[in-house]
Amino acid sequence: MSIIFTSAEAAEEAFYDAISRADLDALMSVWADEDEIVCIHPTGQCLIGALAIRSSWQDILANNPRLKVRVKRNICWEGVLFAVHSVVETIFLGNAPTPHGPMLSTNVFQRGANGWRLLSHHSSTAATSAITDPTTSESPEGGQRTLH
Amino acid sequence: MSIIFTSAEAAEEAFYDAISRADLDALMSVWADEDEIVCIHPTGQCLIGALAIRSSWQDILANNPRLKVRVKRNICWEGVLFAVHSVVETIFLGNAPTPHGPMLSTNVFQRGANGWRLLSHHSSTAATSAITDPTTSESPEGGQRTLH
Repeated sequence: MSIIFTSAEAAEEAFYDAISRADLDALMSVWADEDEIVCIHPTGQCLIGALAIRSSWQDILANNPRLKVRVKRNICWEGVLFAVHSVVETIFLGNAPTPHGPMLSTNVFQRGANGWRLLSHHSSTAATSAITDPTTSESPEGGQRTLH
Repeated sequence: MSIIFTSAEAAEEAFYDAISRADLDALMSVWADEDEIVCIHPTGQCLIGALAIRSSWQDILANNPRLKVRVKRNICWEGVLFAVHSVVETIFLGNAPTPHGPMLSTNVFQRGANGWRLLSHHSSTAATSAITDPTTSESPEGGQRTLH
């Protein structure tokens, strides 16, 4: 039985929640049931397909203390059948109070028969003071645009 | 007068061609006419909005020898109103025969009244032997999926 995510936001929250709980099955259940799904890690590794993606996350979850990811949605583009979120991730390792990161991620979601699922997660390390956003002062929670 | 790109591929080709010609106006003309467009460079800088993106590319084009980018489309997801391309960029600086990179980029395109335009370009450095793709042997030109 697979969970139906009724929005890209719900799928995204499930993805980061699964990372925080080190729950590999839950993490993989967020991905679309497609041969060609893509995960690019901040290390520069690019994994294509569920098997390769699962294996890489298995290694990450096994070889790190518990990862807690705080996510700020920077810009979201929402369509009827797709959504793309540009997010900033702040990562806490184990009980360390000082965050690791931030990371910049582009998450691409597809709506199919089983609700919203992740097609692509591209993550890379942010530079210090990385984000130049003229809209920040007007839109502190990040922007959202609906595409028609 | 703005060019109408009739496909995401055409917009993407114009983007990389503009980089190769160091043509800032042509490069900026590929972006969507939206307040919230995003460009993430391999340096970790994240630019939001046309002014910030233009300024960053102005610096890049002014402070580098001519950049020639060879692009391999790895995975493309194509919809009616959007497209996402996961590509591998190999970059040649000036006349140097040895490439720089590769870089991994996720390019997001939107179809609007003026054809296909770029919403987001997220680029980061690939690890050596970065791409684990079980489909490569069957699909050497990269895959393409149509989403409906």
